[in-house]
Amino acid sequence: MNDFQAGLQAIYDEMVAWRRYLHQNPELSFHEYRTAEFIANHLLSWDIEVRQGVGGNGVVGLLRGSKGGPTVALRADIDALPIQDEKNCEYSSLKSGIMHACGHDAHTSTLLGIAKVASQLRDQLKGNLVFLFQHAEEITPGGADAMIKDGALEGVDAVFGVHLWTPFPVGHVYSKGGPLMAAPDEFTIHIQGKGGHGGLPHQTIDSIYVASQLVVNLQSIVSRQVDPIEPCVVSIGSFHGGTSFNVIAETSVLSGTVRTFNAELRADVKQRFERIVASTCDMHQATYQLDYKLGYPTVVNDEKEAERFFSVGKSLFGEEAVHESPLIMAGEDFSYYLHHRPGCYMFVGAGNVEAGIIHPHHHPKFDIDEKSMLHAANLLIGMALDYMA
Amino acid sequence: MNDFQAGLQAIYDEMVAWRRYLHQNPELSFHEYRTAEFIANHLLSWDIEVRQGVGGNGVVGLLRGSKGGPTVALRADIDALPIQDEKNCEYSSLKSGIMHACGHDAHTSTLLGIAKVASQLRDQLKGNLVFLFQHAEEITPGGADAMIKDGALEGVDAVFGVHLWTPFPVGHVYSKGGPLMAAPDEFTIHIQGKGGHGGLPHQTIDSIYVASQLVVNLQSIVSRQVDPIEPCVVSIGSFHGGTSFNVIAETSVLSGTVRTFNAELRADVKQRFERIVASTCDMHQATYQLDYKLGYPTVVNDEKEAERFFSVGKSLFGEEAVHESPLIMAGEDFSYYLHHRPGCYMFVGAGNVEAGIIHPHHHPKFDIDEKSMLHAANLLIGMALDYMA
Amino acid sequence: MNDFQAGLQAIYDEMVAWRRYLHQNPELSFHEYRTAEFIANHLLSWDIEVRQGVGGNGVVGLLRGSKGGPTVALRADIDALPIQDEKNCEYSSLKSGIMHACGHDAHTSTLLGIAKVASQLRDQLKGNLVFLFQHAEEITPGGADAMIKDGALEGVDAVFGVHLWTPFPVGHVYSKGGPLMAAPDEFTIHIQGKGGHGGLPHQTIDSIYVASQLVVNLQSIVSRQVDPIEPCVVSIGSFHGGTSFNVIAETSVLSGTVRTFNAELRADVKQRFERIVASTCDMHQATYQLDYKLGYPTVVNDEKEAERFFSVGKSLFGEEAVHESPLIMAGEDFSYYLHHRPGCYMFVGAGNVEAGIIHPHHHPKFDIDEKSMLHAANLLIGMALDYMA
Amino acid sequence: MNDFQAGLQAIYDEMVAWRRYLHQNPELSFHEYRTAEFIANHLLSWDIEVRQGVGGNGVVGLLRGSKGGPTVALRADIDALPIQDEKNCEYSSLKSGIMHACGHDAHTSTLLGIAKVASQLRDQLKGNLVFLFQHAEEITPGGADAMIKDGALEGVDAVFGVHLWTPFPVGHVYSKGGPLMAAPDEFTIHIQGKGGHGGLPHQTIDSIYVASQLVVNLQSIVSRQVDPIEPCVVSIGSFHGGTSFNVIAETSVLSGTVRTFNAELRADVKQRFERIVASTCDMHQATYQLDYKLGYPTVVNDEKEAERFFSVGKSLFGEEAVHESPLIMAGEDFSYYLHHRPGCYMFVGAGNVEAGIIHPHHHPKFDIDEKSMLHAANLLIGMALDYMA
Repeated sequence: MNDFQAGLQAIYDEMVAWRRYLHQNPELSFHEYRTAEFIANHLLSWDIEVRQGVGGNGVVGLLRGSKGGPTVALRADIDALPIQDEKNCEYSSLKSGIMHACGHDAHTSTLLGIAKVASQLRDQLKGNLVFLFQHAEEITPGGADAMIKDGALEGVDAVFGVHLWTPFPVGHVYSKGGPLMAAPDEFTIHIQGKGGHGGLPHQTIDSIYVASQLVVNLQSIVSRQVDPIEPCVVSIGSFHGGTSFNVIAETSVLSGTVRTFNAELRADVKQRFERIVASTCDMHQATYQLDYKLGYPTVVNDEKEAERFFSVGKSLFGEEAVHESPLIMAGEDFSYYLHHRPGCYMFVGAGNVEAGIIHPHHHPKFDIDEKSMLHAANLLIGMALDYMA
Repeated sequence: MNDFQAGLQAIYDEMVAWRRYLHQNPELSFHEYRTAEFIANHLLSWDIEVRQGVGGNGVVGLLRGSKGGPTVALRADIDALPIQDEKNCEYSSLKSGIMHACGHDAHTSTLLGIAKVASQLRDQLKGNLVFLFQHAEEITPGGADAMIKDGALEGVDAVFGVHLWTPFPVGHVYSKGGPLMAAPDEFTIHIQGKGGHGGLPHQTIDSIYVASQLVVNLQSIVSRQVDPIEPCVVSIGSFHGGTSFNVIAETSVLSGTVRTFNAELRADVKQRFERIVASTCDMHQATYQLDYKLGYPTVVNDEKEAERFFSVGKSLFGEEAVHESPLIMAGEDFSYYLHHRPGCYMFVGAGNVEAGIIHPHHHPKFDIDEKSMLHAANLLIGMALDYMA
Repeated sequence: MNDFQAGLQAIYDEMVAWRRYLHQNPELSFHEYRTAEFIANHLLSWDIEVRQGVGGNGVVGLLRGSKGGPTVALRADIDALPIQDEKNCEYSSLKSGIMHACGHDAHTSTLLGIAKVASQLRDQLKGNLVFLFQHAEEITPGGADAMIKDGALEGVDAVFGVHLWTPFPVGHVYSKGGPLMAAPDEFTIHIQGKGGHGGLPHQTIDSIYVASQLVVNLQSIVSRQVDPIEPCVVSIGSFHGGTSFNVIAETSVLSGTVRTFNAELRADVKQRFERIVASTCDMHQATYQLDYKLGYPTVVNDEKEAERFFSVGKSLFGEEAVHESPLIMAGEDFSYYLHHRPGCYMFVGAGNVEAGIIHPHHHPKFDIDEKSMLHAANLLIGMALDYMA
Repeated sequence: MNDFQAGLQAIYDEMVAWRRYLHQNPELSFHEYRTAEFIANHLLSWDIEVRQGVGGNGVVGLLRGSKGGPTVALRADIDALPIQDEKNCEYSSLKSGIMHACGHDAHTSTLLGIAKVASQLRDQLKGNLVFLFQHAEEITPGGADAMIKDGALEGVDAVFGVHLWTPFPVGHVYSKGGPLMAAPDEFTIHIQGKGGHGGLPHQTIDSIYVASQLVVNLQSIVSRQVDPIEPCVVSIGSFHGGTSFNVIAETSVLSGTVRTFNAELRADVKQRFERIVASTCDMHQATYQLDYKLGYPTVVNDEKEAERFFSVGKSLFGEEAVHESPLIMAGEDFSYYLHHRPGCYMFVGAGNVEAGIIHPHHHPKFDIDEKSMLHAANLLIGMALDYMA
């Protein structure tokens, strides 16, 4: 166990405390004001150079090693989701309808932990560390692109990031070279029917019926129209129409996400999507407005940095604990960093069936095995040290 | 033209002003506090005996004729709907999301007009008039039953009511003996799925998909399962599920209405409805909570009072303007009055294609031809005078 | 009991025997060769003037009464349906896939019975009887129009017909003035997709999926788009696509029927139907060919002849057994006769719950209570005698 | 070019002629009587030992090399499909409704070509060749298992097979170690409703509506319930219900295929399928009979023999023409051979966009670039020679 590992072990309880504080005080994407303040204050207290308001609510810390060398960026995302926390525990969210249901609270604490330990060991660093605390990962256009445009990668040679992941068991780590995470697109459909009395449907155009039929029709993209060996998802996340049980709803609004890995398929699915929306509405003489936003690009890891992951991971956790990752349907604006710099995005197991930590990401009862933060911290600093070596 | 007709003609402008005031100041069912105050103050100013708070926000006025005789009740409903007024006119609703989209404002003004004129002509009355200003017609359990239980029909011999109706042209009146308006039942369905990440549908139970499929499946009740010659409607008025485009919705909630005329069919449709809800949810391993409330009974006119309508109507508006009404899919808690007393419910045309008054009831642009108020007032007082004669 | 009634009673067993023979030997519409022969031979044996091949396989008999007077036509339809008889009885169909599942065998026997008795009592007739044995009632364009064009109504003053009807209990009769039976339209839709391997749906356009979605979408016409108080049916009677479980079907073919009473609605439904077919196919880039044939007109009874039904019916069966008929969703090319001559179409109850005769028309286990033939014969000859009187 | 390659080149025209003869004379699975005769006669004419009727209509040829050594089996499947040939060419199928729409005619001719050339060069063989002409690949339980049970692999050391594949361009070859082709399951669903008159749907249970709704509901397995990164297909290949446009169909029958690669998912999808069938029928009070047959196992190539493919392929066709195959959704009972012996299944490109050879397998216009037969023959004999070396 090197000094970094020992240092992280020593402050594990502090990382847990930070994480639980953040968990109780989540902030939505683009509204991470107090979270950013919390981060910045900590970094400053450790004598780390801090730039706030980077590309929005981003916070960038710079820790210069004493010996020169390359600059490695480590990234954590810091925003929460519009989900009602349904966990029954002492650290559940204090904010109604807002929740860290994706683990960004733990990402933040993990990176804070690294920053604290590294600030104490800066004499041992053969390079510099940049800490990227990124806002707004959950909503396009995301914070990564804005932070990069605001200079977050200046002077950086390589970039690494992790996601704690409950579908993977705690103690195990996963990544792969090449495509790793999906390109997540986003849509909103306003369906305009014609309102009226619930007992007189023939005088109306029932937007709820049209929208329901549309939800059903959209299933055929994945089930019939896409090559079965190409991963693709079309999910409707929200459906809102009508204000009264006995009034037929003039308008209904759907929103959702489309996920693909392949650029050609991505364009094809968009066209098929538009055709189904148009035909379904036209069938019932409804009109619509479709806003289909292309989201983050696919996360594509550098092959060489992925090899580093396998080697560093095995030395840290043993052969059995390091895995080739399957494709992951989630998207990540970490893809933007990888567009500009070599790097690798990695998954750190955070699920624990025996402990009842089984809920998927974005679930109202989502939680993590907190020991995963220690694994994540070791992996990230391990990658950085290996790169500098 | 008798004195009553002349009197109504004389105060027509006042009726319009009342109606427009009420139109600008709508109040939702069970919240008609200021409307009731408005009514009571007017009645009191005309020396009419007033009882407020009858069965809730109901107002009952009693005008004793000078010559004894039977007591005839005339009824107006006074509540508004949770609809956003989209009319562009000087008297459109001042309250966001609340609107007199069914004409109850004009019903109220019509009955106020009758009250004012009759109070001036009480020497000519061969009986007494009861004015039933009823709250909460739009939402079950409605105000009628509560007002009756609170004594609104005490001493009353017969009861008449009208609905201004835009699908019928202004200048024409409609009614029929026997069944006239549907029994409107109401349902709410909470569908419980399992939330999760929008890109990982297999880890979830997508409540929006289940609810959409349910909306589609419910169509088969009317299209396949009900005798085509039996009028029946199943409408979903609201659909709400999900809070974010990239989170699969744990729950979705539907509400709506079922309308029938025949008691046996009503029970049969309820069973079929329950079966479709249960099977659709079970198909996808979702659970649900169904609240299916039986609403008002069918409006059934007394045959003899319906004959009175044809005779009075023809004498007032001419042979060509009086029609056997088709069955009307809307429900009405006027049915409760008819359960206890003989009477007749009538429709008064309020549409006017040339004037652009074409929107159905409960439509965000609903409006009436205001002259219909004069017709309604003449018809109601005409029925009462004929009954007393 | 007059001589006609007594005569029919006397040959009831013979009518049953004819009916059972015909039931065992059904012939499809436009292929009633042996049935026509059977009819003609019987008529000729009773010294009735016979014209064969009228407008196809129609047979027209003329029985001249001895005393002059008006000419009354009575009509029976003679064709069977492409349904497999699933009854387990001694007289079930001997022809695979063909069945008298609508009672035309009994209509034929009823009219033969009348012809036989009347031929014996021609001295008592105050007019002439025309016996219309009409082919091809089940398939548009039907036989009625062709027979009329071929002179079947020449010299005829009035025309009557009956349908034995199992939804009505035996011993009861039903009719009404004005609209009685629906206008039945017929459609066939060829959906052209693109065939291919069952495991590679993205290389195909799955015509079975498109057609299934279409069946579901078409439900919305009745459930959402038609006035609930207007009877309307859209039924798909056949769906055929694909030849192998692991080959995606290049084409699928649907056929079905649309039923309405109101000419304006009929045209509107046709337009909505076409729109749904077009949009559903377009949604999936399938093409189609739609053949939508307008069928028989609505059956509209003469008001005066309907009054005759009520009076004759009551004298024959008693007050309690004669009913105002509800609207009937089936179509009938009897409508063509009523277009040219006054007349009345009537239903004669043929169901018997205690006897297990409960299956609807066109059901594979359809049967009738055979005593209904006697009622039908008495009603038809009763109408004719009353007309002549 | 070695002697085998030269020999194949020399008889290419003969291979084409055989293929076209077989193409014109296709026989359905388990009915390959004349095809087997054709094969056996040819083999015998080249002095090859022949066993007929192996496990059904299988034909096994044995060519003993002069020098001893291992025994390598090469396999071709010989059956055709129930598809109507829609090609317009001189060699299109002479049998109505039967077609070689998957290329088995060319597989057969390819293997015949190898047999002929090898029989001439038996002195050069360092081992024995077994020619497996297998019947019934298209329908479970297939011919492979039966042939193995009947001794087809006795004495065999390794087994190789190819599929000509139009989605891949002619001149290119594809394979991979591990899982290659899907496990194809098969289902038939008899839906029992209640027949009746097309105008009286409420008296029936409309099996076509239920089956259509089922086709739509089944889409959700792939679109919502299966991990997007796991290939899975649910296809309905045939839908048959109803005999007349105006009779509601008492029964409808669906058949189709389910394809997966992962055994756990395969079992899970079966359960979900059964649940959807049960719930959809129950929703409408229909009953059903589901026959769900597990088909062939997944084709899993031996890793070492797959490496041989890459080496042999590159030497024959050059580096650029040899590819790691994607997962293929089709199934193959070649999996049974691989269960018992090491071996490799390979794809040989047979599509040619410029020449208009673009139709997928099982398409009514399916055809191949016949030059692919030469490539296939060279690849198969190349694998055998390399194995023997």
